[in-house]
Amino acid sequence: MLEKIIDLISRKDFKRLKALLEDTNNADISECLDELSDEDVAIIFRLLPKSEAADIFAYMEPETQEDLLNLLSDKEISDIISGLFVDDAADLIGEMPANVVTRLLNNTKPEKRKAINEILKYPEDSAGSIMTTDFIEIPSGSTVKEVFDKLRKTGRRKEAIYILYIVDPGKYLAGVIDIKDLLLHDYEDVVDDFMEDNVISATTSTDQEEVARMFDHYDFLAMPVVDKENRLVGVITVDDAMEVLSEEHEEDLQIMSAMKPDDEVYSHMSIFTLYKNRIVWLLFLMLSATFTGIILNRYEEAFASVPILVSFIPMIMDTGGNCGSQSSTSVICALATGDIETKDILKVWAKEISVAVLCGASLAVVNTVRILIMYPDNPTKLILSLVVGLTLIATAILAKSLGVLLPIAAKKLKLDPAYMASPLITTVVDTVSLIIYFSIAVLIMRI
Amino acid sequence: MLEKIIDLISRKDFKRLKALLEDTNNADISECLDELSDEDVAIIFRLLPKSEAADIFAYMEPETQEDLLNLLSDKEISDIISGLFVDDAADLIGEMPANVVTRLLNNTKPEKRKAINEILKYPEDSAGSIMTTDFIEIPSGSTVKEVFDKLRKTGRRKEAIYILYIVDPGKYLAGVIDIKDLLLHDYEDVVDDFMEDNVISATTSTDQEEVARMFDHYDFLAMPVVDKENRLVGVITVDDAMEVLSEEHEEDLQIMSAMKPDDEVYSHMSIFTLYKNRIVWLLFLMLSATFTGIILNRYEEAFASVPILVSFIPMIMDTGGNCGSQSSTSVICALATGDIETKDILKVWAKEISVAVLCGASLAVVNTVRILIMYPDNPTKLILSLVVGLTLIATAILAKSLGVLLPIAAKKLKLDPAYMASPLITTVVDTVSLIIYFSIAVLIMRI
Repeated sequence: MLEKIIDLISRKDFKRLKALLEDTNNADISECLDELSDEDVAIIFRLLPKSEAADIFAYMEPETQEDLLNLLSDKEISDIISGLFVDDAADLIGEMPANVVTRLLNNTKPEKRKAINEILKYPEDSAGSIMTTDFIEIPSGSTVKEVFDKLRKTGRRKEAIYILYIVDPGKYLAGVIDIKDLLLHDYEDVVDDFMEDNVISATTSTDQEEVARMFDHYDFLAMPVVDKENRLVGVITVDDAMEVLSEEHEEDLQIMSAMKPDDEVYSHMSIFTLYKNRIVWLLFLMLSATFTGIILNRYEEAFASVPILVSFIPMIMDTGGNCGSQSSTSVICALATGDIETKDILKVWAKEISVAVLCGASLAVVNTVRILIMYPDNPTKLILSLVVGLTLIATAILAKSLGVLLPIAAKKLKLDPAYMASPLITTVVDTVSLIIYFSIAVLIMRI
Repeated sequence: MLEKIIDLISRKDFKRLKALLEDTNNADISECLDELSDEDVAIIFRLLPKSEAADIFAYMEPETQEDLLNLLSDKEISDIISGLFVDDAADLIGEMPANVVTRLLNNTKPEKRKAINEILKYPEDSAGSIMTTDFIEIPSGSTVKEVFDKLRKTGRRKEAIYILYIVDPGKYLAGVIDIKDLLLHDYEDVVDDFMEDNVISATTSTDQEEVARMFDHYDFLAMPVVDKENRLVGVITVDDAMEVLSEEHEEDLQIMSAMKPDDEVYSHMSIFTLYKNRIVWLLFLMLSATFTGIILNRYEEAFASVPILVSFIPMIMDTGGNCGSQSSTSVICALATGDIETKDILKVWAKEISVAVLCGASLAVVNTVRILIMYPDNPTKLILSLVVGLTLIATAILAKSLGVLLPIAAKKLKLDPAYMASPLITTVVDTVSLIIYFSIAVLIMRI
C-alpha cells in the first residue's frame, strides 16, 4: 500500500492515486501518511475529498499533523478544524506547539473555539478531557418522531448518536435510550415512557482509567459526563475508552520495566528521548544497590572462608525478585480491576504467604537435589543445602509479602501501584535476601 | 449495595429487594451475586424479571454460573439459554464441566444448539470463537424501508444492530452501512447505492488479539467475520473486542512476571492454583541460574584475592536486568501495535545500542563518583572504577541487544514475544554480565 502510493506520486499519476485513496480505509491512509515526506503528505492531502480529509487528519500522529499544518493555507486549516469532532480538535490543540495553536485558533469559528476551550479546561487524564461535546440532547417529553427528525437533521455531524440522552429543562440528565428502542416504538410514543432512568454517568473529574474500566464492566457504547449538579456536559464514546485502555496498558508495562511512561510511538522516539526516559530509573536503582554492596562488604570474612557461598548469590537474588514480581503483578492487576481493595490486605497477605511457603519449600527441595548432584564430593554439601534451602523459603515469604504490601500501600497513598512492581521490589528483595542468606550461613556454619 | 442485598434477604423483604434490583444496572447485580452464597443467588435470581435474568447471568463469573445452574430446574435453565446471545451461550458451554454441559444442551432448542456448536468448532482465541451469529443480514437490493421493517421485527433479539451488513444472494459480504446512514436516506432508497463496499473484515481464524487491535485502529463498533470464500458467518461487537484487550493485557503482565497466564479472577483463585501457576517458571529460572553459579565457581580465585569485587555483583546484575527489560518491553509493545516489524530488526538494534552506550556511560560516571566517595582509602579505587565502569557499558549494550533480538526472534518463530520479557532476559543477562565482569577484572587487575 505504502509502496504503491510512493510509486504513484513519483509517476505523478494522481488519477489512480485518487482512486486508490477512495478505496482505502481512512485509518490506513493516515498510517501511510505518517511514513511519507511532508511534501508528499501535502500532495495526498489535497487530493482527498473534503468530507474525508478531517477524519484522516484526526488519525495521524501529532508530528505528521504539525508538519502538514505548516504547509497548509489558512483556508485549508479552517476546513480541517471545522470538519473535526470537538474532542479531536481539543486533542490537536493540546498537542501542538504554541505557534501552531495560535494559527489553529485564528482559523476556528468562535462557537467551536468556545467548545474546544470548554474541553481543554479539564485536567489531563480526566473524563472531561476525553469527552466530546458533539452529542445530541433530547429534551424530555419528546416523541419518537421528534427524535427521528432531530437525528435526520443533525445526526451526520454528531459523533455520539447510537445512545441518546434525555435532559430536563434545567439540562439535568434524566434518562437514556438506545437507538434500538426508537425502532421498536411508535412515532407518537414519548421517550420518557420507555427511557432508562437509572443512568450511570461519569463526572468531568472522574479518572479516565476509571472511565475505561466502566466501559469494560458495563459493555457501554457511550457514557454521559455530568457536572457536579448532574447537568449533562458531554459524552464519551467507546473508541476513546478503548484508546485509554491501550494507552494505560502500555504505560503500566513501561512503569513496570523501569521506564518513564511516554505516549509517543517507539519508532518515532529519538535516541535522546529514549535515553531520558530510561536513565533516571537506572541511576536510582543502581544507587539503591549500594546497600547490597555494603552488606557484602560486611560479610567478606564469611565468603572468604566459604567461597562457595558466593556462587548462590545470583540464584537467590533472582528467585527472590521473581517471587516478588509474581505477587506484585497479581496484586496490581487485582487492584486495577477492583477485584480486591486495600481493606482486603490481610486476606491477600495470608494467601500469598501460603503460596510462598509452598513455592519456597519446592524450590528448596529441588535445590538440595541439584547441590547433591553438582558437588558430590563437597563435605559441607548437606549444611550448604540447608542454608540455601532455608534462605529460599524465607526469601519467598519476604518477597511475596513485599509484593502484597508495597502496591497496596501505594494505592492507599494514592500513588500508582505499578511503581511498586518488578524493578523496585527486586532491588528491595535483593538487599533483604542477602542479609537473610548470610545471617543463616553464619549461624548454621559458625563462620 | 452488597450489604443492602444481604440485609434485605435476611429480613426476607423481597418487595424492597425486587425494587432495588430493578434500579440497579445488570453488570452491578451480577457482581454482587458473585459474592453471595449459592442459595441467596438462587433466591435473587428468581426475583429477577425474565427479560433481565439472562443478561445478568451472562455477566457472572463461571463458578457462580455453575453453582446456580446446579440449583435451577430444567425449565429455568431453558429460559436462561434461550435468553442468552449465541456467543455468550457458547462461552458458557465452553467453560462448564461435562455434566453441566449435558444438562445445558438438553434444555437448548435444536436451532440454537446448532448455532452454538457452529461457534464452538472454532479454535480458542480465534475470531470465530468470539463472534456472534445473532446479527441481522440485509439482502442486497433492499430499500431503507425494508431494512427498517426488518429491524423493527427482529432487532430486539439481535446483538449487533448499529452496523448492518449487506449480503449477495450467495451470502457473500457485499457492503456495510451504519444505522446513522439509514436515518439520512429516504425510505425508497436502495442500500446498495450508499453502502460502503470496501469492507474490512476478519476471517474465522484471525487471532482475537489481532481483531482487538483492528477495533482500536479503525474505531469500529462491530466487525464482520467471513469464511475463506468471503461469506458472512458472524459479527464481532466492540464489547467483546474490549474484553479481549483487557484479557490480553493481564496475560502479558502475567507472562512478563514469570507466571502461567490464567483467566480466573485473583480473589477466586485457590492457593494451590496460584502455586501451580507460579512454581514452574520459578523452578525453571532457578535451575537456569546454575550457570551463574558455575561461573562464580570458576572465578573463585579472583574474588578470593580481591574480595571487594563480590560487592558489585548484585548491582551489575540488577542494572543489566533493568536495561534488558526496558528494551524488551519497548520492543514487545512496538511489535504488538505493529509500530515495528521483524524486518526492522537492524534499525531497532542500532537505536538500542546507541541508547545503551549513552546509558552505560552515564552509569559508569556516576558509579565512579560513588566508588571514590565510598572507598576513599582503597588503593585500587581507580582501577576498580574502570573495571566496573567498562562492565556497566558492556552489560548495557549486551542487555539492550538481547532485549531487541530475543522478542523479535520469538515473533519470527511465531511465539509470543512476551515470553522474552524481564525474567528470562534477566537470567540470561546475569550469566553473561558476570562473564564480562570477571574477564575484564582478570585482564585489567592481572589476578
